[in-house]
Amino acid sequence: MRGIAAARCGTDTPAIYAGTMCRFLAYMGEPIFLADLVCAPAHSLVHQAMHADEGKTPTNGDGFGLGWYAERPEPGLYREIRPAWSDENLRSLCEQVRSRLFFAHVRASTGTATTRANCHPFGHGQHMFMHNGQVGDYHRIKRRIEELIPDDLYGSRLGTGDTEAIFLAALADGLERDPVGAIGRTLARVLALMVAAGSRQPLRFAAAYSDGERLICFRWSSDARPPSLYWRQHQGNVIVVSEPVDARPEEWRAIAPNHVLIASRHAAAELRAFVVPQAEPQPA
Amino acid sequence: MRGIAAARCGTDTPAIYAGTMCRFLAYMGEPIFLADLVCAPAHSLVHQAMHADEGKTPTNGDGFGLGWYAERPEPGLYREIRPAWSDENLRSLCEQVRSRLFFAHVRASTGTATTRANCHPFGHGQHMFMHNGQVGDYHRIKRRIEELIPDDLYGSRLGTGDTEAIFLAALADGLERDPVGAIGRTLARVLALMVAAGSRQPLRFAAAYSDGERLICFRWSSDARPPSLYWRQHQGNVIVVSEPVDARPEEWRAIAPNHVLIASRHAAAELRAFVVPQAEPQPA
Amino acid sequence: MRGIAAARCGTDTPAIYAGTMCRFLAYMGEPIFLADLVCAPAHSLVHQAMHADEGKTPTNGDGFGLGWYAERPEPGLYREIRPAWSDENLRSLCEQVRSRLFFAHVRASTGTATTRANCHPFGHGQHMFMHNGQVGDYHRIKRRIEELIPDDLYGSRLGTGDTEAIFLAALADGLERDPVGAIGRTLARVLALMVAAGSRQPLRFAAAYSDGERLICFRWSSDARPPSLYWRQHQGNVIVVSEPVDARPEEWRAIAPNHVLIASRHAAAELRAFVVPQAEPQPA
Amino acid sequence: MRGIAAARCGTDTPAIYAGTMCRFLAYMGEPIFLADLVCAPAHSLVHQAMHADEGKTPTNGDGFGLGWYAERPEPGLYREIRPAWSDENLRSLCEQVRSRLFFAHVRASTGTATTRANCHPFGHGQHMFMHNGQVGDYHRIKRRIEELIPDDLYGSRLGTGDTEAIFLAALADGLERDPVGAIGRTLARVLALMVAAGSRQPLRFAAAYSDGERLICFRWSSDARPPSLYWRQHQGNVIVVSEPVDARPEEWRAIAPNHVLIASRHAAAELRAFVVPQAEPQPA
Repeated sequence: MRGIAAARCGTDTPAIYAGTMCRFLAYMGEPIFLADLVCAPAHSLVHQAMHADEGKTPTNGDGFGLGWYAERPEPGLYREIRPAWSDENLRSLCEQVRSRLFFAHVRASTGTATTRANCHPFGHGQHMFMHNGQVGDYHRIKRRIEELIPDDLYGSRLGTGDTEAIFLAALADGLERDPVGAIGRTLARVLALMVAAGSRQPLRFAAAYSDGERLICFRWSSDARPPSLYWRQHQGNVIVVSEPVDARPEEWRAIAPNHVLIASRHAAAELRAFVVPQAEPQPA
Repeated sequence: MRGIAAARCGTDTPAIYAGTMCRFLAYMGEPIFLADLVCAPAHSLVHQAMHADEGKTPTNGDGFGLGWYAERPEPGLYREIRPAWSDENLRSLCEQVRSRLFFAHVRASTGTATTRANCHPFGHGQHMFMHNGQVGDYHRIKRRIEELIPDDLYGSRLGTGDTEAIFLAALADGLERDPVGAIGRTLARVLALMVAAGSRQPLRFAAAYSDGERLICFRWSSDARPPSLYWRQHQGNVIVVSEPVDARPEEWRAIAPNHVLIASRHAAAELRAFVVPQAEPQPA
Repeated sequence: MRGIAAARCGTDTPAIYAGTMCRFLAYMGEPIFLADLVCAPAHSLVHQAMHADEGKTPTNGDGFGLGWYAERPEPGLYREIRPAWSDENLRSLCEQVRSRLFFAHVRASTGTATTRANCHPFGHGQHMFMHNGQVGDYHRIKRRIEELIPDDLYGSRLGTGDTEAIFLAALADGLERDPVGAIGRTLARVLALMVAAGSRQPLRFAAAYSDGERLICFRWSSDARPPSLYWRQHQGNVIVVSEPVDARPEEWRAIAPNHVLIASRHAAAELRAFVVPQAEPQPA
Repeated sequence: MRGIAAARCGTDTPAIYAGTMCRFLAYMGEPIFLADLVCAPAHSLVHQAMHADEGKTPTNGDGFGLGWYAERPEPGLYREIRPAWSDENLRSLCEQVRSRLFFAHVRASTGTATTRANCHPFGHGQHMFMHNGQVGDYHRIKRRIEELIPDDLYGSRLGTGDTEAIFLAALADGLERDPVGAIGRTLARVLALMVAAGSRQPLRFAAAYSDGERLICFRWSSDARPPSLYWRQHQGNVIVVSEPVDARPEEWRAIAPNHVLIASRHAAAELRAFVVPQAEPQPA
């Protein structure tokens, strides 16, 4: 009974995997109020927090986060543990803050504690990252994944989740100078750790990265079922979403599995195949 | 757009009604661990917080509460604004606390702020009360309902919701000496306020009251659709739930609409028709 | 023991008074980052949250709030129940948000629950208000004070504190067209309620009001001890603070007791005597 | 300015040290209500949360925790991030829960995030642990300290603080079978890591451990200033506190520096010198 109680109470879930099946959106373009995407549309991200259609879980009530670029190189972050749908501050911020590049994320935890430090997006200097997916058997390889973070970045590990660890590892793998290559290298190393641990779970990865100038969104999975990811471009404004935020599906294009969307303030968005290389052998 | 944003962000919902469509359970009998009902069963209340079947909303993530009688006349209360499914403290309490009479409630707000003071159950001295339903056009008559609370009880109004106001009004209407009559009188007065305000919304009312000795549960509505309410009695232990907490529907009986269940530590539970009288004329 | 326990646990304090002895600051002038006043100075408001020098309590850890005017007529609000000194979101917001007119407030409750809705500043449409002081025997006259709020504004009463009630009453008393007169009228009515209730407690009132164009700050008390309030003007930028935020006391002038500071975007700040008139007789 | 802002906003403090200067109490004896020690006394722990006399900081408002043994081998835990003085749940629990062995802790963070998972006491199976002190240059050796935790316990690392890491390392060092020796070994290893990192900061350690049968409290420091720790024994009931909880100092005895108090349900409390041995050489 105890195990069940634990599981039902959603605390230390004996989780088959411990990624987070969440929903997110990313925007880059002419400055708009966050509310225009986060709160207003019929199927806005805040609405998806309670009524997601394509996620593993319809409810994404384990915290949320906003990240936006304004006048500083570093993004602003607002992350909170209560559900997005009941957060007065979220609404006020979204109605006041106008940004040319922002992320929003609603979280559905599958085992990791609901703390601000575990909410997306994650920031490090000018870099911002968020993720939706799963790292198979994360609990078993958590420590190995954390070992991918070099000492000089380990102090920036404020939470306990898989996404933050992958983000910091990717920074060490060259995220700034070569985002697509760095994510590939990091995922390869994570995959190798899963294999080494005998995991039969998939590594599923939908993610968004920005340095304030570029928006790069990944859709990839080690099996045939990557998390959903859609995008739309209109007059140079790019929106990427886990699910369309309105009832005009024709305007949204799915990002093909194992592809990456690369957009920048100075060039049109393009899609490329995204390949995760064979892992380099891990240092013993 | 603003109104939509507001609604989507779930803060100041232009609510058609402002009751709370929640889920609850009440137990009276031999002392058991709260976890046995709140956490453990397949469709436990914590599970219903995310996956309610019969409620207006499948998600009850706007706070929750526990109330239990132990060694003092006053019940203990643990009320928290985060969702029940992610609350480590809830699980630990439920596994440690054993009680002969307890309430548990998961909340789905439709407009009132998510604060501890608005979470059920409510306590006043030895009295405890929780509710699931709606007061039609509550926002329009909130003030009138609060006027039903006499001065000597008004200081005990810590929140802003309809249930607490009805509870305090019922205390003034004689809840302690005549619970069934008092709730009838209070509902009659609330109904009269709704009518006076020209409301066409229903008054729907599933509620549980206890003084530590008796458990009294109401299922009533001014229209034909009272909130669901079930009960089970086994070896003198009485359980009342918004939804069966397990997959054995045959063991649960619905409390008929407009009926009240009366159980006490010293007598078998009985069901009676529950009638809301014509309202006495309100003092001007 | 119970009373003591209650008092010590800081919940239902048998409060001699129930104002909040808090600390605040208000700024109007060229747009600056909130962090420049809220976080950075040696004795910043965040620092005052833990180490106030002139308040009744050195600790102001019962929530805090930010309110700022940006592109909309309505101010943005960020109010949170955790202490200001440990809020990562507060820091990020203050570093990102630049405003020409903003309020910040750290709260020390003396009885009212710590909820977002009870945190300052309060907003209503384009109007913003915050307060530091006390309403003698508030708990005894809470209901009477709430009766000063007309029906059309009562729906905007989201919390349970004295300041919000005074703010809404002042709106009804003409806060928009005649801020100084309206506050005077409202305070007179509150004072009359205190007298009628036989209170021997003082009414102490340091407050700031803005409509986005004007900044009006009051320092008044019914006894000889109004809350501290200082101001500074430099190149047309006006700062008003409960306590100087830096170690340059010579640059700060105390606002004289029973005076009001009136500043606007289009005129230099001026100080006037502030008189609370005799109360108009209350409606029975 | 940024560094200052950070420090003032109390988030990522460039902490000289990152222990937590907190206050705690531990009780073992005849079952009593937690409120009798946590809430009621004139200088109760809840009072110390805002007005500590002997701590580095007078304010301990960065979360708190309760841990108590009841009917299960595992202790119950209630940990919350808001200050103890404003937590209604804390008061209700303390008034309802009676225990023969419990811990209570109020936290003052010096850099680690305020999350439930970082609040004391920490539990693991039947074991409970809490701490007040500092690990010099923790941020620099955090990773090294975490390496003291074996894989089979690493999954139980839910927070990011020093105390939890030391607790888990001590479990690996034999805390269950030889508590005093295990803590000595673990502190020796931590000290060696500090030395290896060139830290000139002290390791200060006041802590309490229990397995439900024994209460063992340590007072030790690598310099001459261990955190304060007092105890009292009356009719077989043992109380250990960071500061006396009442105004009867004559009834309290200081635990001498570098001593350990050992009490059990079956034997009188005794004091022994506590020595931290030379560290065993670390594995490379």
